[in-house]
Amino acid sequence: MSTCDAFLGIDLGGTKILALAARPDGTTLASVAAETPSRESAERVVAVMTETARAVMSQAELDATAVAAVGVASAGAIDAGTGTLVHAPQLPTMSNTPLASMLRQRLGMSAVVGNDANLAALGEHRYGAGRRVQDLVFLAVSTGIGAGIIIGGELFTGSAGFAGEVGHMTIDAHGPYGLSTMPGALESLCSGTALARVATERITAGEYSSMTSVLSNTNRKGLTAREVFAAHHSGDALAQSIITDAVVYLGAGLTNVVNLFNPETIIVGGGLASEWDAYIAPAVALMREQSFAGIGRLTPVVPPALGSEAGALGAIALANDTFRNR
Amino acid sequence: MSTCDAFLGIDLGGTKILALAARPDGTTLASVAAETPSRESAERVVAVMTETARAVMSQAELDATAVAAVGVASAGAIDAGTGTLVHAPQLPTMSNTPLASMLRQRLGMSAVVGNDANLAALGEHRYGAGRRVQDLVFLAVSTGIGAGIIIGGELFTGSAGFAGEVGHMTIDAHGPYGLSTMPGALESLCSGTALARVATERITAGEYSSMTSVLSNTNRKGLTAREVFAAHHSGDALAQSIITDAVVYLGAGLTNVVNLFNPETIIVGGGLASEWDAYIAPAVALMREQSFAGIGRLTPVVPPALGSEAGALGAIALANDTFRNR
Repeated sequence: MSTCDAFLGIDLGGTKILALAARPDGTTLASVAAETPSRESAERVVAVMTETARAVMSQAELDATAVAAVGVASAGAIDAGTGTLVHAPQLPTMSNTPLASMLRQRLGMSAVVGNDANLAALGEHRYGAGRRVQDLVFLAVSTGIGAGIIIGGELFTGSAGFAGEVGHMTIDAHGPYGLSTMPGALESLCSGTALARVATERITAGEYSSMTSVLSNTNRKGLTAREVFAAHHSGDALAQSIITDAVVYLGAGLTNVVNLFNPETIIVGGGLASEWDAYIAPAVALMREQSFAGIGRLTPVVPPALGSEAGALGAIALANDTFRNR
Repeated sequence: MSTCDAFLGIDLGGTKILALAARPDGTTLASVAAETPSRESAERVVAVMTETARAVMSQAELDATAVAAVGVASAGAIDAGTGTLVHAPQLPTMSNTPLASMLRQRLGMSAVVGNDANLAALGEHRYGAGRRVQDLVFLAVSTGIGAGIIIGGELFTGSAGFAGEVGHMTIDAHGPYGLSTMPGALESLCSGTALARVATERITAGEYSSMTSVLSNTNRKGLTAREVFAAHHSGDALAQSIITDAVVYLGAGLTNVVNLFNPETIIVGGGLASEWDAYIAPAVALMREQSFAGIGRLTPVVPPALGSEAGALGAIALANDTFRNR
């Protein structure tokens, strides 16, 4: 393989590290995954990232001279200028970690870091479900709710890199603060964490549910969103009432996105996108009904085409854009 | 004056038509205002626009050959491709009026039409309070709530021209439908129409207020926002409670704008911007406190520098951009 026609992309999440080697056109050459040692030191997390990157290079038979650069899609708030992970709740030991410079030293190649939701949007735009459009919103509905926004074919991050904080959008001004500094924020009402919290609270307050035994049997502090959806599918009335409420909020959030950004396409990813029929589809139906001038009826809402590789492929696109001409 | 170095800009509102003649750099040569005959036919409204345009040309001593084009900033939803006013609640007789082609015929010059909030944003960006920034949001808080958004120095209108419908953003998912297809939309909770409606409803429901006599004396169906603010300033408890509630909603709306667009500057105009200390400033204080990662503390919120001429000057900028090189 000729010099510098491959890039590395690393997706750094709270539970998993995924490294890919790919060509600039997005063709994946190899992929290696590892668990994130999220309770250990930042030094240790970066060491696992480095090992994973070396493993993927070895699998793809690339030496360092054949790799143009590495891109990282990280959870949390990123200082794009320095490539520093400023803060990520899922990675509690890694606040203010200079990820780009650490990887540059350890791997001996140029490095660039971006937010994972932003880079998932970029990945889907460049190589996936958004290839044919210039304006899209990627909504990641998971333990939190994040978004990446493409406007005019470019990643939109606002004047200081903080645009697109869709999870921190107030949907219910009288709602709980929960996971945000904003009252009744989308993330506090519709994320997996929110669904699990509401179920746990309502059972603890004495409401009847098949989830009660799950909660007491396992002697845990709370349920998971997966357990709420399992109860919903088995006909549990409390779980169904919780999902019905959450659909109204998620529908309002989707409608706000349409009314503010009027994208050509919305891509909904993240763990809860696997509950498409039970959760995403009814929220989309509400959005189609409510949106200004009915514009949402013309807005396709689709799952990611790249699945769990969207972030790492977006990181490769970012590395390509940043270092191609240097 | 040499050929084609001036443009006309017309701001078409529900109550007023304002026509300006200006140079491409925004220097105003003359201005003429007229009342909008909003209950009369579309034909008659366009006739008043034409007369006003001719009056401003005469005042500036411009003949038709000296004017490059006319731009129109219109209330309501505009089909930008054809220059048609699709629908404006403030201009009930003018649905589906082909404004651009009617003005082209009557004035004998090229014509282009845009939405008034969008063009106020463009005017402030090109000639006013947003001259030094590349990303701004212009929020018009008036009988309704509209917005114009500049991203990367360009007007952002989304994939089908409907982006920036900030007034139709749900802030309270359990709130009233009011003026929107969305529950608890910003416009239904914070606009002048909303404040007046809430005051009227609460008095009709029996709450005590100094506004009661205003309502019964004049034998009207409802109060105006101006009367609610007057009562607020004279210490009326009901008016103060209504404004306090509305500040929470407007603060949430401003915070959502910051969290989603992260603009360099927010400009707040429209009739209620005259109640800056009583209404806008406390909402801004809430936004600074709530915004994600405190980013709103760095976001200046300022009144328009162009006052009521922002829309007409934005229309001149649009006409300049559209026809300069033809």
